[in-house]
Amino acid sequence: MSDTVNRRWLLAAHPTGRPLQKSDFDWREEAIPEPGEGEVLLRSLWFSCDPAQKGWLENIGGYVAPTHVGDPVRAFGVGQVVKSRSPRFSEGDLVQGMLRWEDYLVLPATPGMEGLNPVVLPDGAPLHMAVGALGITTMTAYFGLLDIGRPKPGDTVLVSGAAGATGSAAAQIAKIAGARVIGIAGGPEKCRYLTDELGLDGAIDYKAGDVKAAIKQHCRSGIDVFYDNVGGDILNLALGRLAMNARVVICGGISRYEADGGTMPKGPENYFNLIFTRSRMEGFLIFDYADKYPAATKRCWQWMQEGRLKIREDVAEGLENAPQALMGLFRGANTGKQLLKVADPQG
Amino acid sequence: MSDTVNRRWLLAAHPTGRPLQKSDFDWREEAIPEPGEGEVLLRSLWFSCDPAQKGWLENIGGYVAPTHVGDPVRAFGVGQVVKSRSPRFSEGDLVQGMLRWEDYLVLPATPGMEGLNPVVLPDGAPLHMAVGALGITTMTAYFGLLDIGRPKPGDTVLVSGAAGATGSAAAQIAKIAGARVIGIAGGPEKCRYLTDELGLDGAIDYKAGDVKAAIKQHCRSGIDVFYDNVGGDILNLALGRLAMNARVVICGGISRYEADGGTMPKGPENYFNLIFTRSRMEGFLIFDYADKYPAATKRCWQWMQEGRLKIREDVAEGLENAPQALMGLFRGANTGKQLLKVADPQG
Repeated sequence: MSDTVNRRWLLAAHPTGRPLQKSDFDWREEAIPEPGEGEVLLRSLWFSCDPAQKGWLENIGGYVAPTHVGDPVRAFGVGQVVKSRSPRFSEGDLVQGMLRWEDYLVLPATPGMEGLNPVVLPDGAPLHMAVGALGITTMTAYFGLLDIGRPKPGDTVLVSGAAGATGSAAAQIAKIAGARVIGIAGGPEKCRYLTDELGLDGAIDYKAGDVKAAIKQHCRSGIDVFYDNVGGDILNLALGRLAMNARVVICGGISRYEADGGTMPKGPENYFNLIFTRSRMEGFLIFDYADKYPAATKRCWQWMQEGRLKIREDVAEGLENAPQALMGLFRGANTGKQLLKVADPQG
Repeated sequence: MSDTVNRRWLLAAHPTGRPLQKSDFDWREEAIPEPGEGEVLLRSLWFSCDPAQKGWLENIGGYVAPTHVGDPVRAFGVGQVVKSRSPRFSEGDLVQGMLRWEDYLVLPATPGMEGLNPVVLPDGAPLHMAVGALGITTMTAYFGLLDIGRPKPGDTVLVSGAAGATGSAAAQIAKIAGARVIGIAGGPEKCRYLTDELGLDGAIDYKAGDVKAAIKQHCRSGIDVFYDNVGGDILNLALGRLAMNARVVICGGISRYEADGGTMPKGPENYFNLIFTRSRMEGFLIFDYADKYPAATKRCWQWMQEGRLKIREDVAEGLENAPQALMGLFRGANTGKQLLKVADPQG
């Protein structure tokens, strides 16, 4: 532990109902804290950058504890134990969990799905994959698609935000499950990526015009599974094109995070089509599946080595660049799962 | 068969995006038709009046074949076979299925859930109950609540349109299933009916003011099952108050049928709460449960005889009054399941 200063990002303002901006974050340099009984001091190594983080900072309720102004910014991450006052961990151990945008942080050594846990990766997978290609984003795609969406071979699966980290994983896993898969993304380059690199059966460029007609053209016999990362108009159009007994997986709503001036995208008028088509729209939280991650990461790693599951990672470096890396998600600046590298493991 | 004239109501105009009006229906008097091979001639006895009929007349897609201008108006009903050219039925048989607003009608003697079937009622139940208290409305409540909503004892179940035919049955069946049940209805009289006559645990008068606060007050630990007959704002407020792993049963959307000038109620912005609460919103069609009706009607009849399930029926008389009986549903003119009596059975 060569540093003597702890660099931290604190929340300066809640980004509620508006885009994130640099001034929402406060940079501090303070003393490195000491762990108490039952706690560990960690060195942050890698952070995951996720759209959901903006929701956590808005402090409008939801599934994580509130973040108040002056609190450090939460992020999923991988760290290394520097000092341990818990029998669960020793110096040098690699751990993962909900960390904070700080070089050093003290956390209780609590087990469980919302606690701090040893990094568990399939043999041969590099460390950063614990928050990258084999992290929570891919797990979200895996369980959301397979457990909530339940595609059958031959089903038509439509994925919104399909060039994004979760969407591209969901689309590829749907292909592996034998489905016909159509992705929605913004711009011809992302659409080419979906069909030419990921092998999807079709791609819809939502920036190119009539999305309703394009969905109809690509999903002639209706949508059996819609995996939604976007919300807003796209969710509504997909609800209007469901097949019988369809499953709508509500995974995310990037259109909500982009809401400007407090006007959220309107709700989906076509929800009523759930009746005509005897369909189900369902949300889920990935935390509930934590005990199943090891088996799922093993399968995903196998598919990655076989070239059937391609996960792009986009690595930013340096804690000082954390806000930019997060804000970039909402501009589509990243070309895959956005990671932030803070330090290399020691020893 | 003493009549020589067949009186019929035909569709004169699609009531799309506006309330029904008398001029949407055309009265005709024509010759009584003859059945062809495999067909039967029926005398209509009883019709069910259902909000869904307006949807069928709008011809905007959905789960029934389109009704064109000049077509007879469809309705669930009970009839008696006058002439049969099918081995399935004999003269005098009582049958039920999707009939039409006509004194006499020819239908194919097709079995199956969208065909024509013998009236099957529990021992002792009067004929009109096949389209009344033991008909499709009560079956919708039974299967929608128990199969889609799946209340557990101790759950808080919220029912909108709770003084209506489907809602009051769903609310009482939820009580029988051991749930704590809150109903939403319009006006103090309907609310008193819910608590004092039906024994619900609470009632919310949506005309009395702050529905959001009232839902919060009555559902302190959240809504486990929301059985929705209304849609619009009430659906949105309920979505904002879900408990973990809640089930939202989309049964109907009376607020949609009331839409004036083509402006449908907006979609539920709070759908995103399905994620935070890991909840499911699901539609269903009662036709899918047809093979389970006999067991379900037997149970409901038992509960009715025990005084645990009270179903009010409101009987209009005369085919000439069919449009008024249907239109009355949307003004809340009925005080229970609306039926129309056309004729008594013969023999």
